[in-house]
Amino acid sequence: MKINGVAYRTIWLAADGTVEIIDQTRLPHRFETVRLANPDEVARAIVTMQVRGAPLIGATAAYGVALAMREDASDASLDAVLAKLAATRPTAVNLAWALAEMDAALRPLSRADRSAAAFAKAAAICDDDVETNRLIGASGVTLLRQHATRKAGAPVNVLTHCNAGWLACVDWGTALSPIYQAHDEGLPIHVWVDETRPRNQGAALTAYELGAHGVPHTIIADNAGGHLMQHGLVDLCIVGTDRVAANGDVANKIGTYLKALAAKDNGVPFYVAVPYSTIDWTLAHGRAIPIEERSAAEVTQMTGRTADGGVVTVDIAAPGSPAANPAFDVTPARLVTGFISERGVCPASAEGLRTLYPERADR
Amino acid sequence: MKINGVAYRTIWLAADGTVEIIDQTRLPHRFETVRLANPDEVARAIVTMQVRGAPLIGATAAYGVALAMREDASDASLDAVLAKLAATRPTAVNLAWALAEMDAALRPLSRADRSAAAFAKAAAICDDDVETNRLIGASGVTLLRQHATRKAGAPVNVLTHCNAGWLACVDWGTALSPIYQAHDEGLPIHVWVDETRPRNQGAALTAYELGAHGVPHTIIADNAGGHLMQHGLVDLCIVGTDRVAANGDVANKIGTYLKALAAKDNGVPFYVAVPYSTIDWTLAHGRAIPIEERSAAEVTQMTGRTADGGVVTVDIAAPGSPAANPAFDVTPARLVTGFISERGVCPASAEGLRTLYPERADR
Repeated sequence: MKINGVAYRTIWLAADGTVEIIDQTRLPHRFETVRLANPDEVARAIVTMQVRGAPLIGATAAYGVALAMREDASDASLDAVLAKLAATRPTAVNLAWALAEMDAALRPLSRADRSAAAFAKAAAICDDDVETNRLIGASGVTLLRQHATRKAGAPVNVLTHCNAGWLACVDWGTALSPIYQAHDEGLPIHVWVDETRPRNQGAALTAYELGAHGVPHTIIADNAGGHLMQHGLVDLCIVGTDRVAANGDVANKIGTYLKALAAKDNGVPFYVAVPYSTIDWTLAHGRAIPIEERSAAEVTQMTGRTADGGVVTVDIAAPGSPAANPAFDVTPARLVTGFISERGVCPASAEGLRTLYPERADR
Repeated sequence: MKINGVAYRTIWLAADGTVEIIDQTRLPHRFETVRLANPDEVARAIVTMQVRGAPLIGATAAYGVALAMREDASDASLDAVLAKLAATRPTAVNLAWALAEMDAALRPLSRADRSAAAFAKAAAICDDDVETNRLIGASGVTLLRQHATRKAGAPVNVLTHCNAGWLACVDWGTALSPIYQAHDEGLPIHVWVDETRPRNQGAALTAYELGAHGVPHTIIADNAGGHLMQHGLVDLCIVGTDRVAANGDVANKIGTYLKALAAKDNGVPFYVAVPYSTIDWTLAHGRAIPIEERSAAEVTQMTGRTADGGVVTVDIAAPGSPAANPAFDVTPARLVTGFISERGVCPASAEGLRTLYPERADR
């Protein structure tokens, strides 16, 4: 997608052979890119959330393996980098998926072939993510067209939580891909953007990328979505996910569950955009998904721009009060209207997933 | 309640005859008091939320009428100050209640008697608020004792939203009054404090006053409460309210509805602490309660302390993105386990309210 008229992906191979990323901890205040030269720098970029979003975490980890293979293509090096990167963040299954893909591609090869093959595989994972998300958009835009027809020219109001846009992926986004495609084909769309405390990925990233693409949107406090639904101001919700269990339970950014409850209570359809790499076929239900607990400082502090253009971090809470910061929650499948995947739309259930992925359900 | 060992109310008559308040827009970063000398300053203090919280808004407005009567005790002056103060904020019914109380007390009097009577009546409204809230605490502490017995020594975990503590009232608080009384009698209590975006009354005020009184508490993002309830970490919710309709629907700070949905979904009792002055017997249901829309800047900006001790306001959202800021929502009575009032605990329904207030239901 474009920033100031220039097309970007969120990750690419730089001319010097390093891996270049957009530093998402600096947005929306600064647009800066960072070059990652080795697996340690990749691990740190994931841990500090310079890159974030389930698909992008997976793609970045794939390049981390490639950088390790260029330094040392031994089995021991491969084992070490897989273990190091697997430990960076617990909830998004795309990380484990991408590492398994890299392992399967590289393990059978000779040392001499591993480095080139690793960069090729990482690039393929990125290209696959782009095409997958383009197809998710094509699946989802059919739903938006139906709403647009019913609204007869009035904007379709979509509520989203956190950032599942192109900044969370390599390009297009998952939840935002249908929105971009609908906007591009001229459907009137307006997006309610949950600010998504504590890290504010909604106000900082989703609003940023929607604004850059010209999609009408309004930032709201996370508290406001239920009230808007009670008053008929939300036509449907679309969110992303970090891991879907085999029964259709959905792990996503903390607070997603509350919006799903409000959607159910008000008859608002609640969709989850999910690429195949985010489905964890090994987990029977969402209660088994590990939930990351992050730093209390993310709750008690906030970073922003001062009037003179500086960027500062301030303490916003009562001095001395402790804080807790669970980063994800699990929305039970019963609250989800459907999944929007690269293969189409299906009910959020084991049966629904089976209709789209019969080859996995047979296992 | 005490701050640094000194007992305070939130509003009092200063030695110079002005009305002194704690400036709640400066907390938790600064503890400052402000003197209000005339009705215009009172109106501004309410509009800018130097005072906030339904009961305290009512008490402050009562003193605003008294200050007006001291300047000019004519009927025209009385009409003007009642109209001016009624227009300051729309949602909390305590404002209209307090103004009606003042009107009823003053209208029949001669001009000569009105000023002294107005100050006496405002003081009586404040004293009544303190006693009412003490009784709400006595009603609610019985519920907390039951939970404490079941938990056999483990802390009772209470989740609250926004600030319905003593800073929202004249003293004690509504939702926090049972918590203070339970803590003071030695029951183990821990409070999950919703930060309550966009104005952060939870992180700024509730955490501040709980900390000052020594009550164990943890600040959480508003998004986190549902997840905590799913994992059995919340024994009950207690919130305040700005207006209760005759059928038991509850207007309170934006986001209350989402927590009530999560409580219902997880079998967690959800109580609303309500003094009689917050019940609007004239409204059949909550859909008729006016919902205040506040400034977008409350969503896109944040105020905090810098490392050098300064207090600054920063822009936190994507530049140029608009924001919407509905300040309250309505929780349907069906999601509320019960009301905690100065007369005891009752179901959240017209029938429940009738059991506690038979004299009103007869009307």
